[in-house]
Order: sequence, then structure tokens, then C-alpha cells
Amino acid sequence: MAHGGGGLQMHAFLRRVVWSQLDNPYLREESDAAVLEVPPGMEAVFTTDSFVVQPLFFPGGDIGHLAVCGTINDLAMMGAEPAALSLALILEEGIEEALVEKVITSVRATAEAAGVPVVTGDTKVVERGHADQMYVTSSGVGWRRPGVVGGWRSVRPGDAVIVSGTIGHHGVAVLAARAELPFITELRSDAAPLHRLVKAALAACPAIRWMRDPTRGGVAAALNELAAQTGLSIELNEGAIPVAEDVRGAAEILGLDPLYLANEGRVLFVCAKEWAGRLVAALRAEPEGRGAVQIGQVGEAVAGGRVTVRTGWGGVRLVDMPSGEQLPRIC
Amino acid sequence: MAHGGGGLQMHAFLRRVVWSQLDNPYLREESDAAVLEVPPGMEAVFTTDSFVVQPLFFPGGDIGHLAVCGTINDLAMMGAEPAALSLALILEEGIEEALVEKVITSVRATAEAAGVPVVTGDTKVVERGHADQMYVTSSGVGWRRPGVVGGWRSVRPGDAVIVSGTIGHHGVAVLAARAELPFITELRSDAAPLHRLVKAALAACPAIRWMRDPTRGGVAAALNELAAQTGLSIELNEGAIPVAEDVRGAAEILGLDPLYLANEGRVLFVCAKEWAGRLVAALRAEPEGRGAVQIGQVGEAVAGGRVTVRTGWGGVRLVDMPSGEQLPRIC
Repeated sequence: MAHGGGGLQMHAFLRRVVWSQLDNPYLREESDAAVLEVPPGMEAVFTTDSFVVQPLFFPGGDIGHLAVCGTINDLAMMGAEPAALSLALILEEGIEEALVEKVITSVRATAEAAGVPVVTGDTKVVERGHADQMYVTSSGVGWRRPGVVGGWRSVRPGDAVIVSGTIGHHGVAVLAARAELPFITELRSDAAPLHRLVKAALAACPAIRWMRDPTRGGVAAALNELAAQTGLSIELNEGAIPVAEDVRGAAEILGLDPLYLANEGRVLFVCAKEWAGRLVAALRAEPEGRGAVQIGQVGEAVAGGRVTVRTGWGGVRLVDMPSGEQLPRIC
Repeated sequence: MAHGGGGLQMHAFLRRVVWSQLDNPYLREESDAAVLEVPPGMEAVFTTDSFVVQPLFFPGGDIGHLAVCGTINDLAMMGAEPAALSLALILEEGIEEALVEKVITSVRATAEAAGVPVVTGDTKVVERGHADQMYVTSSGVGWRRPGVVGGWRSVRPGDAVIVSGTIGHHGVAVLAARAELPFITELRSDAAPLHRLVKAALAACPAIRWMRDPTRGGVAAALNELAAQTGLSIELNEGAIPVAEDVRGAAEILGLDPLYLANEGRVLFVCAKEWAGRLVAALRAEPEGRGAVQIGQVGEAVAGGRVTVRTGWGGVRLVDMPSGEQLPRIC
């Protein structure tokens, strides 16, 4: 508990476990806030997410990696260049220092590889039995040129719906790690920072209307939100939706629909249909977008919006908004 | 748990309890990030804090009020005008909706009164028995003119040390609420947003070197940090340190030193000594600074820095960095 008290032990702990690793000129100020230069003419984009994933470590990632990726991706989806991250830790009394250190090592590795520094943070400690080990909240600030992405208001009937790769890896990987299902331990989360992929996409395609990383609730939730906001129908082609064989198999065993599984390294794009081919080609040229493919299109207006999928048998199935907990504690 | 799942129930809950209250054009976008215009020529200031205070409601405030004040104050201490806040909730499964609503009502009231909108957020739900009811993480972005405050590097021997009012209210109020000590229930937390006070101070005094809100660890921790950073001694005059009678009485009963008690509505200033009188006068003209007074001065360099207090008896006592948990879960 003393490590959260704001005193000597907290400072020693932070210096030893957190600051020494994340070291940069912002943190070296040891202020309660960081000062950032704003590139002239840019808008700021600001986001936050809490992470309560269980278990903390899973194939392909951990809570620290996830926090950095999730925050970078929320900025990237708005067309922003991520500039700075914050990291707020809520630790359970008695958590092993080595465990915190392992998470911070992962934060550092991911943030360094992404080129986005962690500039400010906070640490609180709660009594044993609370906060099962660790919760992480990260926020992010980025810069973007005004109007670089139109947003949902710019989506039109006929637009193409594109996904950057196979879906469902994160959801299945975390569930498998939690349930200790040995037969699917080879599945890995797709968690990855997507700002470089988005930058390449924006450079290649001036007609991107909307982007979203389909995290909690998966592709189904992200597209249902878009449908509800726009009042348009969104029509997917089941045969085009990329699902890796092992994810499909695991999802079947677990009774889950891949459209509802969380992703942490995929983007959904809506773009003008005449640009779809060029956007897919540009995505495939990037490591994070090799599996990019058009999975559907935006249809006509319908009261309240609607997402449907055309099955291999020629039928049409409604893709509902997930109604409750598909997979709790997935991020 | 379904309320944290990213699906229909979560959306309905957020719309009902959170968005409807905090309603503003940023939240109405229902994006994962908010877009902010940056005033030309300004730097950005970015901060984050998690709040795990127990109990959630205490005399003079609650976890929502505290989160808004704490975040605004971290920005203000850097000389920034707070522009936008984020709010990330970690809720315990089964928490009463009315309780969440009460906290959000408080967030709204404090944010509205301060003129700083909550522009983005996140909600996660963890199983019953975790997160005792609710943890709140808020981040903030503000704008400042480059160089508006020098920071600790600009502090010089001879500078005046000023506090904006009586100390220790927050620490004693939360402790009293937790311990249900009836004889001190009239004590109220000082939690308040301080950006207007700071703005008035900066307008009145061009020679402010450093500001800090003495939260966890109190005045002792804040000044020990400054002493360690600068390698200077800081000399306080015990008789000048303002402590309200009821706080002093409660602190004595509880065996606590007011210098170590948390504050959430006070600022410590260091300014050039020839400006001290004018700064104190300017602070006293503001509602949040009525009790402002000089409490000491910066002395010569000493290895590692040092904080001392001159007692009424002519002695000099060392004010150590708090070594462990003074008061856990105080913010």
C-alpha cells in the first residue's frame, strides 16, 4: 500500500520499475503533466481507454501491449498521428514487482516500436483482493490535418466496406488463455498498432469516409454503430469475410460467431467504391494489412440502420448489435 | 457484466446514465476519440490521474468531483488553460445505477462550473468483488503559452513560498468519512478546480517560478520533491502555516501532521521574493485564494535538497518526504 501513498516508497518504486524503463525527456521532468509542441495548423485528437483484460498475459500480447495499441489505434482511426500516451496504473496490494515490470517492459517495447512516447502517468494501489492484480488506463493525444477523414456523416450508399485482415484472433486468444484450452493455444492475439497502416491508407486513398478498429463486440458492433449513426443498411458477403482456419475452428467449438469476436489489430474502412481496389492494394502492401479485402458495401437508407450478411446459400441473415456480454474482460 | 461488453446493454446504459448528462457536441459524435481545435501558438499540456478514493462520497466531494478537480488542477499547475477532459470508468458488476448516476451528476456539475467539457470516455465492468464499486481515471488536455511558467529549474535561493489557503482539509475529511468519526463530520474536503485562481495569479505576477497542488503526501511531499529536484533548501515558518482549528484538532486526535495531509483545492507557489506581497494580494482577491499567505522561502543549495520548518520555540525541524502510506485511498 505504501507504494501508492505518494511518498518515498512510491517514488523509489516508480523510479525502479516504471520511469527507468520508459525514460524520456517528458518523464524526466517528474511533473504531474507533460508539455507537447503542437505542429502548426493541426487539430488535436484525444482519447482514453481502460484495460481490465484477464488474464494479464495471453498469446500475442498482454495488458500493457494492449493499452498502447488500443490508444494508438483510437487516435489512428480519427486520422491522427499519435503524439503522446499516458499510463495510469491501479495496482493490487501485494502484486509482484516482477509482474509490474514485465507489463512496463511490454509497454515500452510497443511504444518504442510505434514511435510514440509515454509522457505522463499515475499509480494508485488498492487493498489486496481488489483490482485483480492490475488495471491500466491509457490516454492519448495526436495531431491531424483538419478534415482528413469525413467520419460517419460522409458515408454514402454504394461505398465499399473493407477489412484489413482476418478477424477474431484477439477474442479467441484471450478466451483460450483464460479457459486454458490446450487445443487452441497456438492462436495469437492480433493486437498491433495500426497508425502506420492508416497513414499508408490515407496517402493512397483520398476517399476514405470512415475507419474503426472493431474491438469489443467485433465487426458486428462496429458496423451496427455505423448503421445506426447513418441510418443506412450495410450488406456483407459471408464468403468474403476473412477468418483464419484456426479461429473459425475455435469459434465453432466455443459457439461464437467470428463477427462478434474482438480484434485489436484490424481496421474497418468505408471508402468510395471506385477507390476500393486501390485502397485494398495499398493496405496489402503494408505488413499489418496483408489480408485486406472488401467484405461488403453500404446500401440504401433503412429506419434505424441495419447490418446484414449474404450467406453462401443465397440467404440473407441479420447481424444484430451484440446484446450483452459476448466475452467479458476481453480488453 | 453485460454493461461492459460493448453491446446493446452497454450503449443503453451509457446513453441513459452518462452521455445524457455530460451531453456536448464532442460526445454526440459517439467516436472513440474527440477532435479539439488548438489555439494558434499554444503548447499542449497533457495529464492523467486514477482515483480510487474510499469512500466514494465524503464531506465536500466525491470521486467524480475529485477526478474533475484533480485533472483540471494538474493542467493549471503547468500554467495551462484546461480545454478538455476524459473519463474512464471501471465499474464493479452489480453497482447500483443510481450510484453511478450520482457520480456522473457530480462530474457534470464540476465540469460545467469549471467550463471544461468531458469530451471522450470509456467504461469497463469487472466481476463482483473487484474494483470496490468504482474507479475513475480522468485525463486532461490544456493549452498554454510557451514559457508561461519556468518550472522547478527556475527556482532560486531567496524566492518566496506561498500557499493559497489552509491545509489538510481533504485528508482529514476523507479519513473522517471512512472511519465514521462523528466528532469531525463537519470537516469538508477543499476539493476545487483551481484554474481560475492560477490564471489570476499568472496575470498579477510575472515572476511565478513553480506551482504545485499538494495532493497525496501533502505540502511535505510537494516541497520535498521540489527540494530534491533543485538541490535547494526550503525553509518554512511553522507559525505562518495556515491550519484551520478543526483540521488541527482532528489531526492531533488522529496523530497526523497537517503538512502531510492531502489537499485538493490548494496551490503552492514559488515566486521571486519582491513579488510575494503582490501575489498574495492577488490570490486573496479570488474566492479560492482568500487564505493565501507566505509560509517560507527558498534557501541555499544543500546536497539532495532539504525541507525544514522553524518552530515557535526557535528550533528547526526537518520535514521528511513521507516514507510510506500516510493515508491510503485518499484520492
